[in-house]
Amino acid sequence: MRKYLAGIDLGGTKFATILADLDGNIIAKTKNETRAAEGSDRVIGRMIQSIRDILAENGARVDELAALGLGIPGQQDSEKGICISAHNLGWVNLQVLEPFKEALGIPVVMDNDVRVATLGELKYGAGRGIRNFICITIGTGIGSGLVLNGQLFKGPAGLAGELGHINVVPDGDPCLCGSRGCLEAYASSYGMVRIAKESISRGEKSLMEEMTQGDLEKITPKVIEEASDRGDKLATRIMEDMYKYISIAICDLINLLNLERVIIGGGISNMGDKLLDRIREYVVYPRIPRPSQEILSIVRAELGEEAGMYGALALARKCLEGKGAN
Amino acid sequence: MRKYLAGIDLGGTKFATILADLDGNIIAKTKNETRAAEGSDRVIGRMIQSIRDILAENGARVDELAALGLGIPGQQDSEKGICISAHNLGWVNLQVLEPFKEALGIPVVMDNDVRVATLGELKYGAGRGIRNFICITIGTGIGSGLVLNGQLFKGPAGLAGELGHINVVPDGDPCLCGSRGCLEAYASSYGMVRIAKESISRGEKSLMEEMTQGDLEKITPKVIEEASDRGDKLATRIMEDMYKYISIAICDLINLLNLERVIIGGGISNMGDKLLDRIREYVVYPRIPRPSQEILSIVRAELGEEAGMYGALALARKCLEGKGAN
Repeated sequence: MRKYLAGIDLGGTKFATILADLDGNIIAKTKNETRAAEGSDRVIGRMIQSIRDILAENGARVDELAALGLGIPGQQDSEKGICISAHNLGWVNLQVLEPFKEALGIPVVMDNDVRVATLGELKYGAGRGIRNFICITIGTGIGSGLVLNGQLFKGPAGLAGELGHINVVPDGDPCLCGSRGCLEAYASSYGMVRIAKESISRGEKSLMEEMTQGDLEKITPKVIEEASDRGDKLATRIMEDMYKYISIAICDLINLLNLERVIIGGGISNMGDKLLDRIREYVVYPRIPRPSQEILSIVRAELGEEAGMYGALALARKCLEGKGAN
Repeated sequence: MRKYLAGIDLGGTKFATILADLDGNIIAKTKNETRAAEGSDRVIGRMIQSIRDILAENGARVDELAALGLGIPGQQDSEKGICISAHNLGWVNLQVLEPFKEALGIPVVMDNDVRVATLGELKYGAGRGIRNFICITIGTGIGSGLVLNGQLFKGPAGLAGELGHINVVPDGDPCLCGSRGCLEAYASSYGMVRIAKESISRGEKSLMEEMTQGDLEKITPKVIEEASDRGDKLATRIMEDMYKYISIAICDLINLLNLERVIIGGGISNMGDKLLDRIREYVVYPRIPRPSQEILSIVRAELGEEAGMYGALALARKCLEGKGAN
């Protein structure tokens, strides 16, 4: 009997499903809408249906599926299969794994989406063969997954990797988390847009007003980047601060963990090589020790938004190999 | 035949030697002067002699010694047995292990002194039974050793744990390392004394002038603490900044690594419970996630200045058990 593995990467608006055989050959990938507003039962039901569909469409039976891995946003207790909280889905203390196990009758494992994406880069992307790295996702927020000694490092309460909430400005601006001066408050798209809106509302002149016809809600990181390219002072300050604070966080990481590689993904990383070039300019001796610099590479994520589903697949494989979710 | 293990913790002014049997019973401890100015050959010679002496004084023979562990200041290549640089000893690219191996004919292993002290706390002190912790030494500088998943984490180039050089103030004061805004530039005794001297030299009024009869070279962390207790404004600002920046660094650590315990040692930690109380006041939700806070304890190092020699002993034991230096 042939055997398959599947993975699902759940996002706030869409989820991606992937099917592979046990030899690691990718058979199919699909995308579906999350429709979180319909409630968790419907979302999980649609995820289960996506597994049935992808199997059927590829001539496979449910009893040929050996294991399923899930990447879930927010904070997870992956041992108990509970999503403790996922703001963008409205999930709080939700048992996630049981419905999948009941419906499919197979081992199902889950972890935080950023960590699962990191596992994807480790097994199939920019982290292959690298034993110590961080995968930083810079989007609406800033998350990260750590690989230390070749293994995902989760921390005793499963909360390692909260890079978005390390402090970059003492007594700095408020962050959504309730603290102040967090990296995320300056260098995420949320943070950048917030600073643009607040500064213009306070009367600071900017091309961005004209570019958005005065509707500040239309400001995006893309608008900020374009305004900066056109010489806008406020936009340039926001961009420069973003480069600087991400670089400070990376220097902190290198000083603490002596990582070999920093992998940068997420929406903001789509601005291309400029971001990486600016970070590389900053992350140099004497900000980090010379021998640390010699072993360090700073690269873009290879798998882009597919990292999550590849990671979910790798999670399923690990589960099958009896290593559990880590 | 009885068998013994020994450890030496080398410091800038003194070195400590410890002898134990294979069952872990401590037999003797001695202290000798380093006299670094006499050169590395003489220092190493005196260290070897301390081993011969401690054995002889306790009725043991050199051929009964099974392994020796060394904690060496500065930056080490412990695989090759080379001290890459140790400022306080004046050592640069020095082969350390060979003379010991030649003289004693036994396995000898070494590591950075802060990491070795961390191993001491792990095996015999405040880190016993804790799988994820950091041991922070706050003295002239600030160093740290990380234990992750129950093992010392060294990093691929052996440089993990440079907590003193994480950034706490963007574009802040210059640090001895060549960078700016490092924790060490504010919260080490070097940093605190530097700020006191610079501020008074710039004309800021302070009780510390009177307390040192105008000789600013006499300012120590103790003087700053006393002046602060007497209500001095400058001294209080220095103390408060020290508490704040150490706390910021600890919050960063918890957000990144979700550690269970933070162990604080070194000269500054001798100021007693006040330091720990102030840190505990700061390191709370929302600065770190609530579940991280629930598993966290912040404690003083248990072994004090003996952590290094106990760690060197643990290093010798690990070597004997075939686990190498880690």
